[in-house]
This record gives sequence, C-alpha cells and structure tokens, in this order.
Amino acid sequence: MGEQDLAALLLTSEPDIRYFTGFLTRFWESPTRPWFVIIPASGDPVAVIPAIGEDLMATTWINDIRTWPAPRPGDDGVTLLADTLNELIGPGRSNGNASIGLPMGHETSLRMPLADYARLSDMIAPNTFIDATSITQSVQLVKSEAEIEAISNICGIADRAFARMPEIASAGAPLSEVFRKFQIALLEEGADWVPYLAGGAGQGGYADVISPATPEPLAEGDVLMLDTGAVANGYFCDFDRNYAIHHATDRTHFAYRILYEATEAGLDAARPGATAADVYAAMHAVISLEGDAGAGGRLGHGLGMRLTEWPSLIPTDNTVLRANMVITLEPGLEIAPGCIMVHEEDIVISEKGAKLLSGRAAPEIPILK
Amino acid sequence: MGEQDLAALLLTSEPDIRYFTGFLTRFWESPTRPWFVIIPASGDPVAVIPAIGEDLMATTWINDIRTWPAPRPGDDGVTLLADTLNELIGPGRSNGNASIGLPMGHETSLRMPLADYARLSDMIAPNTFIDATSITQSVQLVKSEAEIEAISNICGIADRAFARMPEIASAGAPLSEVFRKFQIALLEEGADWVPYLAGGAGQGGYADVISPATPEPLAEGDVLMLDTGAVANGYFCDFDRNYAIHHATDRTHFAYRILYEATEAGLDAARPGATAADVYAAMHAVISLEGDAGAGGRLGHGLGMRLTEWPSLIPTDNTVLRANMVITLEPGLEIAPGCIMVHEEDIVISEKGAKLLSGRAAPEIPILK
Repeated sequence: MGEQDLAALLLTSEPDIRYFTGFLTRFWESPTRPWFVIIPASGDPVAVIPAIGEDLMATTWINDIRTWPAPRPGDDGVTLLADTLNELIGPGRSNGNASIGLPMGHETSLRMPLADYARLSDMIAPNTFIDATSITQSVQLVKSEAEIEAISNICGIADRAFARMPEIASAGAPLSEVFRKFQIALLEEGADWVPYLAGGAGQGGYADVISPATPEPLAEGDVLMLDTGAVANGYFCDFDRNYAIHHATDRTHFAYRILYEATEAGLDAARPGATAADVYAAMHAVISLEGDAGAGGRLGHGLGMRLTEWPSLIPTDNTVLRANMVITLEPGLEIAPGCIMVHEEDIVISEKGAKLLSGRAAPEIPILK
Repeated sequence: MGEQDLAALLLTSEPDIRYFTGFLTRFWESPTRPWFVIIPASGDPVAVIPAIGEDLMATTWINDIRTWPAPRPGDDGVTLLADTLNELIGPGRSNGNASIGLPMGHETSLRMPLADYARLSDMIAPNTFIDATSITQSVQLVKSEAEIEAISNICGIADRAFARMPEIASAGAPLSEVFRKFQIALLEEGADWVPYLAGGAGQGGYADVISPATPEPLAEGDVLMLDTGAVANGYFCDFDRNYAIHHATDRTHFAYRILYEATEAGLDAARPGATAADVYAAMHAVISLEGDAGAGGRLGHGLGMRLTEWPSLIPTDNTVLRANMVITLEPGLEIAPGCIMVHEEDIVISEKGAKLLSGRAAPEIPILK
C-alpha cells in the first residue's frame, strides 16, 4: 500500500473480507446486502456492514464495526461507507488527493451495485479509487502453514470420499444419484459444505468438465469423472478422479496414462523459481504428443479460499512459484471432437519441489464393476 | 426495453444469464472467468462466453455463441464483447447514441472486473450503459407455473429433511455435526445441492441467523434453529425451523407462539393488491406486542433462482404483490439482548391469497429429546 501510496484499501468480496478479518458465513449466498471492510494505511481495519452481521463480525478481531439496517434500497450503506472513508482519510489530503485501493483486475469483481459505486465515487471525491488487485492477490498468493493445513485437511476428506466410489457408482446408476451420493460421502467424511461438484460421463470420455448432473444412467464403457470443490474450515480442495464403468478400452487406458504422465511432468516442474508458464509447458509437452489440451486451455490454477485463484497455468502467466503457494495441476486431453478427459491434483510448492495435497490418482484408470 | 429505448441488454450474473438462457452450471463458483449474454432489442440473444462453456451453452436454446480462450488476462473477452455489441447495435445510431441496459441497482452486482468494464465502456462509446435493473427484476418477479413447481418441489424436499430432525439433533450433539447431517438429509431427500445452511443454538434463543456451525454441543434448554437454502432443478427454498432441546421454558414457548402468530398475520395479509410493506406491517404488529423485530429488520423477501430476491418485506417497499410471486415470511423477535428467534415460511401468492410452499411449522415448538 505504501508503494502505491494508498490511503486505504476497500474490500467488498467474500474471500477478500474473510482473508483480512476471519469473517466466515454462508450468508454471502444472499445477493441482497453489500459488505465492506476498509484497511487504512495506518490504524485498524473498519467493517461497514449490515446490522444483521454485527454479532458475527464482533467475534473476529475487528473492533470498529459500523452498521446500517440493510436492506435500505435508497441508501444501502453508501453514505455510511463514504463518511467512514472520508473520516479515515480526510476529504483530500494536504499533499494532494488520496487514492483508495480497490480490486478491479483479473479474477475480481465489485460486490456492490454499480449505481451505488458511482454514488460512492462522487461522495469521496476528490479522492479516487484505483486498482489494487496486485496487493490483495500478492498477499493471498503464498499460504500460511495454517492455510496449507486447512487445504490439506479438505483434500484428505475428498480422498476418503473418492475411495468410496465403488459403493457409489456402477453401470445403471443415474449420474444425478452418483453426484448426490458423492456429496453425501464428502459430508460424512468431514466436509463442512460442498460448494462445487461437476463432472461428466460418456463412452471413452465426456463433453465438458462444468456440467451439472443429468439423470442419464451410467453405461458400460463410460468414463465417469467427478471434480469437487468441497470446503472445510473455509478452504477449498479442487481435484477430480476418473473411473471406467465396467471396463475400459485400450484407448481409454492410453488417454488416462497420458494425463497421468502429464501430471508427473507437472509435479517435476512445479518448484520454487519455475513460472506458472513453465509448469504449463512441462505438462503440455506430454499432452501434445497425443493431441490438443482439452478443458479450455488452462492446465491448473491457484487454490485456497476460492475454488480457483491466480496464478493460471497458461503460456502467458509468468508468475514465479514460491514455497507455500498452493496450486492445482489439471491437464486435459481432447480424445475426439466433443470428447475429453481431464486429471487434476492439488499441490503445495515446497523448497524441495511439489508436495501432493490430494492423494494422487491411480496410475491406471480404476474400473468400477 | 422499448420503454427505456434500449438497444440491448447486457447480462453478467448467474441468475440473470440462467433466467434468459437456461444455462445451469455450478462453475460460477470459480471467480476466474466472466460470462456475458446480450439480448438485443430485436433478434436472438447472443452468448459471449469462455470456450470451456461452449458445449454446455449449446445444449440451451441459444444458437449464437461466441467464445474466447479464457482465462486470457490481457483481454478476457472484452474486445469480443465490445465487437459483438457494436455489431448488434452499430457504433452510434442515426437517431443518436444507443443505450445498453445493465443491471446496476439494488441487489445486483456486475460480475466482471471493474477495470474491464471501464475498457468496455470506452470501446462501445458513444453508446453507453444505463441502469436496467427494473427490467431484469420485473420479469423475474412473477414466476411461471414451472418455476412455482420447482420451488414447491425443493420446499417439499426440505420439509422431509426437517421431519428427520429427531434422528439428527439431541442434547450433546455438536452443532457442526447437526449441520452436516441435515445437509446429508437434504441430499438424501432429493436436493441437488445445498448452497446455504445457517442457524444457531443457545439457551432460549440464538445470537444471529447467519453463523456457520461451531462444534459446540447442544445443551438441554437450547433453542436450535436451522435455516436452509437448498436447490433442486436450479431453484431455491429458503425457510427455517426451530426446536427446543430436551425441554422449553414458558418464555421459549411464548416467543415461538408470537412468531407463529406473526406468520399467520403475514399469511392473511399476503394477497394480490397488498404491498410488501403491508405484509411487513401485519407481521410487525404482532411482533411489536412483545418487543423488537430481530434479524436485521426485514421480515421476508422474494425467492426463486436466488436465495433472496426483491421485494423486501420492509416498511419502505411498496411493491404490489401479484399472483404467482413467491416470497418468504420471516418474522423475528429479539427475546433479550443478543438472543433472537426467527421463523420462516415460503409462500406463493395466488388469486385467493397466500398458499404455503413449505409445510408450515408446528404451532408449538417441537421438543427434541
């Protein structure tokens, strides 16, 4: 903040606010109310939030909590927020107008009505908002030991749920029932909730990795993939597993093996000093022996309080990996037009290289009879 | 759109895009990629989306699908979106500059990076974005029969899960285990997923209605409340139930009864022609016999593809209720400082008045032994 000469940082999103305060609630699912936290250049953070959240915010380390009775459509916290910013910063500083940092860049969005943001901007003038994405992202990029432990814990929970797939999926089971039972297994194994589950099933592969379940029954020869982002203690896992229903063709065995080897290459490449692009290149070199990368081109990404975070394992992301960054390795292969297979593992970067947080997929595709 | 002389509507949020296209995926959990749908004043909608979503979008009624290989931080769909808007609208119309509607008002937010929105605004100039919240909200306010059926279905699922509470919660059970088992019950009864569960437990009441679970065990004399927003076929329920653990004091019985009667008053008041404020007033009149309304002042809200929608049952919301609107009735009571109780039911407005979608709480607080 000093480098950018920011007088304050304004946070509006769930993970940004939770990262700096510890405020954990599923109430963000309701789009009605905006929430704000201000981090001044000096002094303690200030929460400017709906009254409904006051008691819960008071359980965090934040002491200065200002509330309004939301929803109040005519002025949903805008005046209170502007007054608080102006009080903390002063209406234009003696050495010029002040800048307030706000995440405006890649992978961010402003969680308040755009019309209210325009009013707020007027009310804090001549001070202005400037992009502070690099600040919020850089501090969240490298995880603490406690964060790594939390991610490792939820990865272990998902490992145990995947270990129960033989009792969950077999030929004839509707895919929607498989999704339901797998979510139940995640909860039984210790997940607090299951914000994300996607997957697919089809002969030798599937069409995409983002579809919800259909009631279509699994068929012999299908490849089934489940990709989960479950949460415990506020941290996500994000990895998938592939299974063959009843039997696998040589083609399926081969595609699976390519992706297994691509992940091995990623595990070798993911070490301090390498870039996100280097890890992409290592995995892509294996995949491209066989065909195109599937699943939209990205071969992995950061992971933490969000299902997906920076960096992206793409050719143009030159983020240098450092110890205690947590990322996913997610190589994909287009087997035929409209038919893909994707592997995914979660790792933490250590001084010695990649350390698996997920339990590592089997080297050959498991068969569910 | 004609009334506001809009050349097009730009949608960026999950429910807005799903409402107009049918595009259903849990992938929105990943904040990385923006998604756009344009509804031109004439002609078919156009989807401008990450390539990873092309196959799934192609299963909807949308035929014009334009993609880019996201994430591409340097230009994450902005040029493609601007080009598409300019193609559809023309760069300034002969009769003046065109307006593109965008939801900017209460309960909306723009789901794309703010810096990208600024670039987009430059690239579509002299055309401009103007607020179109009233359009997206007004069409989604009154539900179709299919939507009402979907909400009724998920309410029935939650009713069946609540009916299993005697096997889920009793004195000594950690609250976090109760939350976990209740989510499992929701899935077993047919929920596709459980985006929202909050609640609380404490002697005679609880501190708030938005906290996640703690491992604290339930104690005799506690009032336990669970409030769930589960989803099936893309539609939410949102109601709660209260239980006394082992026994209830006279005070607890009385507070529960006040809220039951407040809900009755809401059921009587919620009919076509009444305003949201009228329904608020009817419930508030009962609550205020006893004390303050708890839970932040709002006594209910709309429900549908979102856990909470317009209107709000607050004194200043003069939305006129019409047949086939779905709302919640959510009276709350502050029993003592920091100790509240809240009831919630889901209803649809019919020509004859309120019709319950949730199964109606018991008239006396149920005791879990």
